[in-house]
Amino acid sequence: MAEAGIIDGKAVAARVREQLKTDVAEFTARTGIQPGLATVLVGGDPASEVYVASKRKMSVAAGMADLHQHLPEDATQAEVEGLLGQLAANHAVSGILLQLPVPAHLDAAALIELIPFEKDVDGLTTMSVGLLAQGKPGLRPCTPSGVIELLDAYDVPVEGARVVVIGRSELVGRPVAQLLVNRNATVTIAHSRTKNLADVCREADIIVAAVGVKGLVTGEFVKPGATVIDVGIHRGPEGLSGDADFASVSEVASLVTPVPGGVGPMTIAMLLANTLRAAELQYALAD
Amino acid sequence: MAEAGIIDGKAVAARVREQLKTDVAEFTARTGIQPGLATVLVGGDPASEVYVASKRKMSVAAGMADLHQHLPEDATQAEVEGLLGQLAANHAVSGILLQLPVPAHLDAAALIELIPFEKDVDGLTTMSVGLLAQGKPGLRPCTPSGVIELLDAYDVPVEGARVVVIGRSELVGRPVAQLLVNRNATVTIAHSRTKNLADVCREADIIVAAVGVKGLVTGEFVKPGATVIDVGIHRGPEGLSGDADFASVSEVASLVTPVPGGVGPMTIAMLLANTLRAAELQYALAD
Repeated sequence: MAEAGIIDGKAVAARVREQLKTDVAEFTARTGIQPGLATVLVGGDPASEVYVASKRKMSVAAGMADLHQHLPEDATQAEVEGLLGQLAANHAVSGILLQLPVPAHLDAAALIELIPFEKDVDGLTTMSVGLLAQGKPGLRPCTPSGVIELLDAYDVPVEGARVVVIGRSELVGRPVAQLLVNRNATVTIAHSRTKNLADVCREADIIVAAVGVKGLVTGEFVKPGATVIDVGIHRGPEGLSGDADFASVSEVASLVTPVPGGVGPMTIAMLLANTLRAAELQYALAD
Repeated sequence: MAEAGIIDGKAVAARVREQLKTDVAEFTARTGIQPGLATVLVGGDPASEVYVASKRKMSVAAGMADLHQHLPEDATQAEVEGLLGQLAANHAVSGILLQLPVPAHLDAAALIELIPFEKDVDGLTTMSVGLLAQGKPGLRPCTPSGVIELLDAYDVPVEGARVVVIGRSELVGRPVAQLLVNRNATVTIAHSRTKNLADVCREADIIVAAVGVKGLVTGEFVKPGATVIDVGIHRGPEGLSGDADFASVSEVASLVTPVPGGVGPMTIAMLLANTLRAAELQYALAD
């Protein structure tokens, strides 16, 4: 059987970032406002430092202001709250991103809720989640938005398609299901308690695997010609892999995202898109 | 073929209200707080007056305080906002219900958002919707909660069941899907753009019809032995009917809700349950 086409997330993400450069310049010329991203890092977790550095670098490359804030590992809840309050009130700050995880002595959920919905570029606050579920304008979480962007980039029909989302996490499964319903897909939310998961998945034109189980989705889950989007990421002795078994899925699917190089690169690209969108929202609200 | 059993919503609602009487008395004895429901009616729409009268009467019967507020038809946005602000700040008010529709010159969406989430007994604010989507504690919309209560009252297995929800409205379809996912069902959200709807529905152990198309769900949509919950309500020359064609569905399903007398009576019962829950939430938050 023919091998599936590979969805090249790196290339799509690069195109999104390139387009953003133009859009940011246009927005700045029209409004006099340079979108600014305030990444907030508490402590010195090495992985978080790498992620934050990457977000800062790419936001600057897109023409945005880097408004990074770094607090020491032992910052108190009140100190982080104070900083978030200042960033919320500061008109130069378009987007606020609290890098997770925060040190264990802090209440991350309470901190996230201090980010106003119009600056919530991660789309994680209860308000942003509610706005998505209501189909109202707001900022959507980055990885789910990246999934939609990849489907669009490869002209995968979403309207009227049957989609099975495996996983019901707050970060990916639930929001991606909402976005797909908003796009007129018929969406099934499957999860660890779903019976006959392979049978359920074989009904799908599009499978979004976001369940966090390495290699769970094999070729027998896939209807011939379906598209498989793999949001999972697992580190093993042979490097990174996803929730799908790439080899067997590729023999049946028509399109599949690799891990790495599929959904992963989209997350920062959509964060930057959200930062511009946040600046636009605030500009509209201030009118 | 055997006729389906009838889910008696009137009887279940009466049992819920009876249990609430006990629970309210217990809460009041324990905390010294009598839960109070502030229904807010703007103008004199006859149907709204009937609904509000019914809500007030049943809340009093459950042992709650009736804190009804009536504003004239020509009340301004600022006047309604002022009233909602007072009710939000008033510790005697456990729950606030803005009866919809409000007169056309008012911005209903903006008014709803003035209800604090811990008093939002209709579960309609963006915060409440977000809390549901995040699976966090909060007040859930009444009709979707009533659907779950009916399934539980008739011991319909939900965990692991395949459920098809037809309709993606903010009021019913989306929240009922969320509640069912939280209860470990495998949930498909279908709607007007779904292809081969009958085939999709025949996969379901439970169908929730909330699409607003009279008689859409016929026997051929139903897997033998499935349960059909009909949230639709349509007025015709022969009286009320639902989104399901009761006669043909009854020949295939094992359990079905009638219209009227199925989901309808549950809505006020769950409103009262929410009012007690709101009083409990506020008591916990004040601790």
